[in-house]
Amino acid sequence: MKQSQLFGKTIKEVPTGVSAKNHELLYRGGFIRESVAGRYYFLPLGMRVHEKIMKIIECEMEKAGAQKILTPTLHQLDLWRETNRTDTAGFELMTLKDRRGAEFALGGTAEEMIVDMVRKFNISYKDLPFNVYQFSNKFRDELRAKGGLLRVREFIMKDAYSFHVDNKDFEREYKLMWKTYSTIFTKCGLETHVVAADNGYIGGEYCHEFVTESEVGESDFFVSKDGKYCAHEDVAEFDHVDINPDDELKEMEIAQQPEWVQTMEDNEKHYKLPSNRFLKNVVYKNTLTDELIIIVIRGDLEVNKTKVESKLQLVGQLEAATDEDLEKIGTKSGWVHSWGHDAKYVGDLSLKGVKNFIGGQKEKDTDTINVNYGRDFECEVIDDFAVAQDGFTKDGQKLIAKKGVEVGNIFQLGYHYSKLMNATFRSKTGDDEFYYMGCYGIGVGRTMATIAEIHHDENGIMWPESVAPFHVHLINIGEEEKTQETYEQLQDAGIEVLWDDRDMRPGQKFADADLIGCPYRAVVSSRSLENGGIELKSRTQKEGEIISVEKLIEQMK
Amino acid sequence: MKQSQLFGKTIKEVPTGVSAKNHELLYRGGFIRESVAGRYYFLPLGMRVHEKIMKIIECEMEKAGAQKILTPTLHQLDLWRETNRTDTAGFELMTLKDRRGAEFALGGTAEEMIVDMVRKFNISYKDLPFNVYQFSNKFRDELRAKGGLLRVREFIMKDAYSFHVDNKDFEREYKLMWKTYSTIFTKCGLETHVVAADNGYIGGEYCHEFVTESEVGESDFFVSKDGKYCAHEDVAEFDHVDINPDDELKEMEIAQQPEWVQTMEDNEKHYKLPSNRFLKNVVYKNTLTDELIIIVIRGDLEVNKTKVESKLQLVGQLEAATDEDLEKIGTKSGWVHSWGHDAKYVGDLSLKGVKNFIGGQKEKDTDTINVNYGRDFECEVIDDFAVAQDGFTKDGQKLIAKKGVEVGNIFQLGYHYSKLMNATFRSKTGDDEFYYMGCYGIGVGRTMATIAEIHHDENGIMWPESVAPFHVHLINIGEEEKTQETYEQLQDAGIEVLWDDRDMRPGQKFADADLIGCPYRAVVSSRSLENGGIELKSRTQKEGEIISVEKLIEQMK
Repeated sequence: MKQSQLFGKTIKEVPTGVSAKNHELLYRGGFIRESVAGRYYFLPLGMRVHEKIMKIIECEMEKAGAQKILTPTLHQLDLWRETNRTDTAGFELMTLKDRRGAEFALGGTAEEMIVDMVRKFNISYKDLPFNVYQFSNKFRDELRAKGGLLRVREFIMKDAYSFHVDNKDFEREYKLMWKTYSTIFTKCGLETHVVAADNGYIGGEYCHEFVTESEVGESDFFVSKDGKYCAHEDVAEFDHVDINPDDELKEMEIAQQPEWVQTMEDNEKHYKLPSNRFLKNVVYKNTLTDELIIIVIRGDLEVNKTKVESKLQLVGQLEAATDEDLEKIGTKSGWVHSWGHDAKYVGDLSLKGVKNFIGGQKEKDTDTINVNYGRDFECEVIDDFAVAQDGFTKDGQKLIAKKGVEVGNIFQLGYHYSKLMNATFRSKTGDDEFYYMGCYGIGVGRTMATIAEIHHDENGIMWPESVAPFHVHLINIGEEEKTQETYEQLQDAGIEVLWDDRDMRPGQKFADADLIGCPYRAVVSSRSLENGGIELKSRTQKEGEIISVEKLIEQMK
Repeated sequence: MKQSQLFGKTIKEVPTGVSAKNHELLYRGGFIRESVAGRYYFLPLGMRVHEKIMKIIECEMEKAGAQKILTPTLHQLDLWRETNRTDTAGFELMTLKDRRGAEFALGGTAEEMIVDMVRKFNISYKDLPFNVYQFSNKFRDELRAKGGLLRVREFIMKDAYSFHVDNKDFEREYKLMWKTYSTIFTKCGLETHVVAADNGYIGGEYCHEFVTESEVGESDFFVSKDGKYCAHEDVAEFDHVDINPDDELKEMEIAQQPEWVQTMEDNEKHYKLPSNRFLKNVVYKNTLTDELIIIVIRGDLEVNKTKVESKLQLVGQLEAATDEDLEKIGTKSGWVHSWGHDAKYVGDLSLKGVKNFIGGQKEKDTDTINVNYGRDFECEVIDDFAVAQDGFTKDGQKLIAKKGVEVGNIFQLGYHYSKLMNATFRSKTGDDEFYYMGCYGIGVGRTMATIAEIHHDENGIMWPESVAPFHVHLINIGEEEKTQETYEQLQDAGIEVLWDDRDMRPGQKFADADLIGCPYRAVVSSRSLENGGIELKSRTQKEGEIISVEKLIEQMK
């Protein structure tokens, strides 16, 4: 295509409010424009990249036997009611009514729709398994959109849903999708960690995120030094170490404590002990029942809300308690007791590894000391609710904290949806049995942004060939006629070429070529022609070489 | 693909509420399923056809130089306010708010979004023209969805928008799109009439519908006998003939008339004169201003509301007056006067072609007779507001009334949107000038339904090769091993083949093959193998022939 005819332009200025590099470059390169925050126009260049990613996904999904379908954008809200997701979906669901009063949701994910579609058929075990997928608009009413295409309010997602007779067949498919996803991201030029994660509002018992390491990401995860363990902080386990195993148990007592001792730092200073010797309380409220939940944990650890929600089966229902909430149980921030309030007490595993805790019943100028879990107080539930930390170990291997962009995920759903929606098939014995399910998602725009984030230098994007908008950026310095000829030769050979035929200084054309980031730049000038061809330079290299058009074509194929 | 693995099943029963043949066959063949009225799931077979149509459209649009983009699904409602379309859009617009209170429309068409995208760039005359297109979800809050994919509430539309320096360049593009659309529909196996139509809520001055003749369609249009004139009933003109030119003008008088004379039929009976000698009044209300508009017309003609809206520039604003409305101006249905009420009087051209009209001031047992337009009463506006009729003439050529499905349309928009949205480019002289625009739409699902409606017999669909879900439906009667071999040979040769490998009676397989409608059926049986190959039958023919796999592959390529 001739660049003079391309809709969209490069610009030099970094737009205000843009911090992530991928956002800046996709904007400046003329790939995308914002409509309103979190909603983007894909311009022709951006569309080409977007579609190449879709093509890679489609190709690998089809190879894996998945079948393409399409669901409506508006989901009957009653379907979401069947699975109790109208209230607890982690993102806020957008809903609307049509002129007849029928209620719809703008789907953020399509489990209900797909199960509804499947249960319209009379399916027997012989028809199983199948995996259906679509590319469709997904909506997330995010409070904050950011990072360009990384966190948006609507986007094209490839979402797939598989149906099986049992767990065993599902596990085969899960492995297949794992492999398929790895191939997809490799083909897109992305390295990914496969990170065990929390199923959240999607439901089911386990899932894995495909995460590309990057500082702009929002997935915090841990990898063990030997690489065998890889888990999101929401699920990452770690070895619990006893802090003071050799200490002798002492009698619990109420001790005087100066009034200035308020925070954990004050405590450390006053008692001259590290924070792991103190009790800490974190309070959440169940937004559906108003019940307060007090998590008691070792002072140096942080509570992970997702672990709490997941282990107490309160997904999407907890939020931090407010001063008002605390007042209702007769306390205030910093003065919460580790036992005795009218609340549900939940203890972290770490409570068992410390003797003679300090804290637990702070009043104006007293607190308890030598508190021992199991002897002096107990919680209704005790489990792992703490966030792992860089340097902790898991099975003896050091954990390394990492950050990245979640580009895809695969979920075991089990019987979650089929039971809630009463979706069954006819088994070998003629009985109605629930489907065993999984689902698998990839955000196409986020993948595109991640590729740009990973593959760029100070001058612009460096697209991997597989997803580049064009293979060759052809630039003429004068020599229009000869370039026209080269352009046609390349096109005839099936090479995707963008010819910068604009009337501009060579320096501007070179800068635009670097910014747009096609894998190869081919320059036709009197000098190159004198030397017998065109100057070909890879976007990732500094120096070019003169080669003939024929050789270029051969090389590109 | 093996049919045993295909998601979706054929069924024998016609679902209730299904009348259109395309709907029945697409449903029974396992191409689509309804989610809720007017919103459909595309199953794998349906998806394949849908995507082939998209591919044809894409290919021809790209050939014509159009560039693919994508706009968000949620349109900022303020953009629709800029063009005053929030109230007057012909379909009811669905709107919603996000959690921050921002208002959005679910777009039924995307003129505002595209102009908004374009005006984000600093565009000069050198960058023009361009034509950008997308495939995206469109929403229409139709009161009644019907005919399966023919009239739905959401669908994928290919919509394109072109921007030009002036009318002259636009006219070039309009011709190009006309040609492109003709090619697209021909490639899809559809014959189309190019029908002049009304721009309606889209705006602009002229447009053309691409209409495939069919009784299930909702486009009523007229073609002149010589084929030179083709127009939708909303714009179709016809030769006005004087009814009684030789009669002498008589004095208007109030005549006695029996009380039983109420309807046009009563009048014809009482006066023993044809309906074209009487005055008729049709009353509309402007829903924005509450003003009543009385159209006075010759008794044998019908008023076309779209003509009234278009010519009075009240697009989307009129609805039939109610009994209550009539009461407010002191009259009732059947007793409306052709002059004198507190309303806007609008006359049809036909008023000028009749001498000595009967009617115009009906009271209990009187009416006026010998009423002559221009002498006894006049209207504020006189123009063509009547629907043409089969047998009328246009420029002396008989008009033939036809009915069909509008599968695509092309619109001149002129300066309509660029002026309302202040979208300008820098002209050669350095001035800001408004874009001259056009837009071009194709409903993909409706095209698919129309193909099925046109190409079927009593046993099922007969897909044209270009859009068929698979080229060959391979059926084995026993002989699994040999068929497996053939299946692989066909696939290796790049032929899309659906192998019915299910454990079923041959008759059932044949019936399904006819229903699904792939262009070729290839049967492998002991008999066919004895005769040296496979039995190949075209879906459109009764008899098959035995040919070798090699020959089949050759023939398919």
